[in-house]
Amino acid sequence: MSHPSNTAATIGINSVRSALKFGSDGVAELWLDRTRRDRRLAELSALARDAQIPVRQVGRDEIDLGAQGGNHQGALAWVRMPAALTEHDLERLLDAAQQPPLLLVLDGVTDPHNLGACLRTADGAGATAVIAPKDKAVGLTPVVVKVASGAADSVPFVQVTNLARTLEMLKARGIWLIGLSDAAPATLFETDLSGPTALVLGSEGTGLRRLTQERCDLLASLPMRGRVESLNVSVAAGICLYEVVRRRAFFE
Amino acid sequence: MSHPSNTAATIGINSVRSALKFGSDGVAELWLDRTRRDRRLAELSALARDAQIPVRQVGRDEIDLGAQGGNHQGALAWVRMPAALTEHDLERLLDAAQQPPLLLVLDGVTDPHNLGACLRTADGAGATAVIAPKDKAVGLTPVVVKVASGAADSVPFVQVTNLARTLEMLKARGIWLIGLSDAAPATLFETDLSGPTALVLGSEGTGLRRLTQERCDLLASLPMRGRVESLNVSVAAGICLYEVVRRRAFFE
Repeated sequence: MSHPSNTAATIGINSVRSALKFGSDGVAELWLDRTRRDRRLAELSALARDAQIPVRQVGRDEIDLGAQGGNHQGALAWVRMPAALTEHDLERLLDAAQQPPLLLVLDGVTDPHNLGACLRTADGAGATAVIAPKDKAVGLTPVVVKVASGAADSVPFVQVTNLARTLEMLKARGIWLIGLSDAAPATLFETDLSGPTALVLGSEGTGLRRLTQERCDLLASLPMRGRVESLNVSVAAGICLYEVVRRRAFFE
Repeated sequence: MSHPSNTAATIGINSVRSALKFGSDGVAELWLDRTRRDRRLAELSALARDAQIPVRQVGRDEIDLGAQGGNHQGALAWVRMPAALTEHDLERLLDAAQQPPLLLVLDGVTDPHNLGACLRTADGAGATAVIAPKDKAVGLTPVVVKVASGAADSVPFVQVTNLARTLEMLKARGIWLIGLSDAAPATLFETDLSGPTALVLGSEGTGLRRLTQERCDLLASLPMRGRVESLNVSVAAGICLYEVVRRRAFFE
């Protein structure tokens, strides 16, 4: 069976449920494994019908193929690929923000699993947007959309042509740029994170570029108590974003 | 060129440097891309020579093949596969611990990238050990070792045959079991984490199993401010582990 064009597979019961509940505009078709009997699959079917999304009962081979070996638990949603936003959209988003902005800036993340996990975590933390340069970084590929588990539709992802210019724009708006760097003397936990904040993280291999680092208002590190020199970028992003969530929950 | 038997590739300048500095016993051979001129590659070569590890200058094709498409930056260390520890080793580790134990318990993580990222983060947080059941969970595969970036050698990874029994043993030693669950009324940030702590996280798809959950002393959630229902397990583990690091740094 062929799937709808220009879509990517979202798989697994939780991820498909999120897509149907919150991003149903973007779901082109729902596939369910006809050989499984599961109350949760029936629930997904009902959600899709309510949203007038076509549901197909397919064979296990077909859903396995669509899921490309992933653990689909009998459920696959074909989700239209979202488009990245531009710097102009970002300004609009910041104008409209009801709360102090919380931004995640990724300077040169090339691994789609890492970008997907960052989007998912940014959604969880209620971030305003995720910002990345257009060049030498991964965009919204099918793998990113799949790993993001629905968050590629819910968190604005902004691709900018000139990251330095965007950082200057954020500063001019009073947003504090906190760069994560192993070499920073203070840890994130000792750093002032009140107010509008952009967390700036570098790439998997080489960290923050010099020009990006120089534009940050402050640098902060994460304590490294063992032998590895750094954390995976999506894990580091999660720790930083949730430190802001924690502070805002307790001190605002 | 054939690589040493029973080894896995660790790639990238930072990861290879960690392996050579801290786990040099486990490095069987270092491969460097002979077509690159890079001060950092020369440093790796010197580290390897100091540790009496054979260094080979290889062609780009060979190192690409060894790295299986990963971003090796010209450096690849062939690292002997570490062995998982047993419940008996865990008791020995806990007897010898100089500080209040910090344990990460993974109940049914099957994705090697997630286990690798968890080991890397557990090392960063200075955790005492990572504990997982032998059945229905991933062990120390080459992908896990690679993603762990050297941490598979530095963080004790304990595979147990009966997770419930291990949890009871931890409780009997006065270690507080904190289970991460979406359904918990209180967030992790409101939860008492002083004293010896084991953070118990469930699998990617289905969360904590009922029997595991019932053995926890307390359940805690992470705030979810957006549309996705949960975070990637390695990101969630990072947030939880570093919340303990933060508290211990400030309050002990």
